[in-house]
Amino acid sequence: MKYLRIGLPGYETPVALHEGKYYDLSAAAVDIDGDFLNAGGIATTAGFPEIDIEDARIAPPIAKPNAIVCIGMNYAAHCAESGAEPPAEPVVFYKHPNTIVGPHDDVEIPRASTRTDWEVELGVVLAKRASYLESEEEALGCIAGFVVANDLSEREFQIERSGGQFSKGKACPTFTPLGPWLVTPDEIEDVQALRLWSKVNGEARQDSSSKDMIFSVARIIHHMSQFMAFDAGDLLLTGTPEGVALSGRFPYLKAGDTVEVGIEGLGSTRNPTVQA
Amino acid sequence: MKYLRIGLPGYETPVALHEGKYYDLSAAAVDIDGDFLNAGGIATTAGFPEIDIEDARIAPPIAKPNAIVCIGMNYAAHCAESGAEPPAEPVVFYKHPNTIVGPHDDVEIPRASTRTDWEVELGVVLAKRASYLESEEEALGCIAGFVVANDLSEREFQIERSGGQFSKGKACPTFTPLGPWLVTPDEIEDVQALRLWSKVNGEARQDSSSKDMIFSVARIIHHMSQFMAFDAGDLLLTGTPEGVALSGRFPYLKAGDTVEVGIEGLGSTRNPTVQA
Repeated sequence: MKYLRIGLPGYETPVALHEGKYYDLSAAAVDIDGDFLNAGGIATTAGFPEIDIEDARIAPPIAKPNAIVCIGMNYAAHCAESGAEPPAEPVVFYKHPNTIVGPHDDVEIPRASTRTDWEVELGVVLAKRASYLESEEEALGCIAGFVVANDLSEREFQIERSGGQFSKGKACPTFTPLGPWLVTPDEIEDVQALRLWSKVNGEARQDSSSKDMIFSVARIIHHMSQFMAFDAGDLLLTGTPEGVALSGRFPYLKAGDTVEVGIEGLGSTRNPTVQA
Repeated sequence: MKYLRIGLPGYETPVALHEGKYYDLSAAAVDIDGDFLNAGGIATTAGFPEIDIEDARIAPPIAKPNAIVCIGMNYAAHCAESGAEPPAEPVVFYKHPNTIVGPHDDVEIPRASTRTDWEVELGVVLAKRASYLESEEEALGCIAGFVVANDLSEREFQIERSGGQFSKGKACPTFTPLGPWLVTPDEIEDVQALRLWSKVNGEARQDSSSKDMIFSVARIIHHMSQFMAFDAGDLLLTGTPEGVALSGRFPYLKAGDTVEVGIEGLGSTRNPTVQA
């Protein structure tokens, strides 16, 4: 099943996409949130009315989570282009949940920014509270679905203006485009073998595979659950592969650019950038 | 005015404390949350029924915020005991909002922990969305109130197991005791001249003043609003003074200890520690 949300911010309608048709889930779900996902979502679209989404805004596919938990430096080639050693254990930081926007919404270049960068990331949404999990298998059982995310990053803010603590460059308004869908695990054959890519103004930037992750999705969730408790509905971002502007190979984003990120089987986002 | 919440987790009743009496605010507030604070709270307790809180659990004084935004290294003497230089600009990291517990709830020592530490901090709760503020004066106008917080920290997780990103040692379950009250700004004469202290098993640990902050509350909010947007109800923690276990002067916490933190005019927390 694929879940999405349509409508203006604060007035989203929960929708299912199944075999090419869209269904209005309002009768079964207040929102695509932790409660809905913890209850298992829907097993079938039978009985739900079809809905026309043609002219609607595509919203982020999940309600605002309690937290966005991010893993940094999780692809070896990206560590190299960032001038860092691959980590021995997952490196974690957080983004403010109010950074989430839809897959076609404007992304704002922060006022003082000179180095706004893109990062395609595999997003994982939790289906249940996860704390002190006993195995990676148990971790896989905590996953509600997968989503495309762009973990936008202002590199000066991230690296030079916060004593090295990443979050200052990660939580600017609109810095987490998500979508278009939340895709349930049964639709993904192997989450560790998905192509991830990004483009700026139609030109290729990142193009890698989730098989190059240093720490797999299951390992990250199991590991992190020893240090924190995930809530149902939380969003986990699993790191970005090589090919970002920080590498020096590409210019940073400027207002008027269009940034796209996509993952095989999960769709893609395409956001215009504007000056804040 | 002082606001608090009483009752079991998920079933809290909003309460006002005014001139020594407690009032049930259920008729005016769903919760002590961003909506309530953004609307200005209550101007008077007239008309609200008195309530007996004698046998009730004192809950955290605010509903779960969208984010806990933390400033690190904001007292020069604490930088020195941590082996760090005072920062040129505020250093920011986040804690998961599900870490919040009440002022007398159990604090869990994480399973793999050998270095769980305390940090008394002045907490600031935002009354409104704050983004690209123009002045420190405007920042002061965004404050709903002040609260005592204990920013518990596992030093090995924080410093050695996440490539130096602090959040891994900051977001363990129960790691943010808060309370007992949210105190509105009119009750605090000078927020930059408040005594802050902590004790373990009744023995003094930290004992400093908010006048020693490197970056004032107003400066932090104004500065950070250039890098992020605060939501109404967000919790900002403003850093801790010297006197933590990381200094080497005191043992780390162990299960069975009692940890207290307090701030002049804002009350104190007193949490027993248990093994997770």
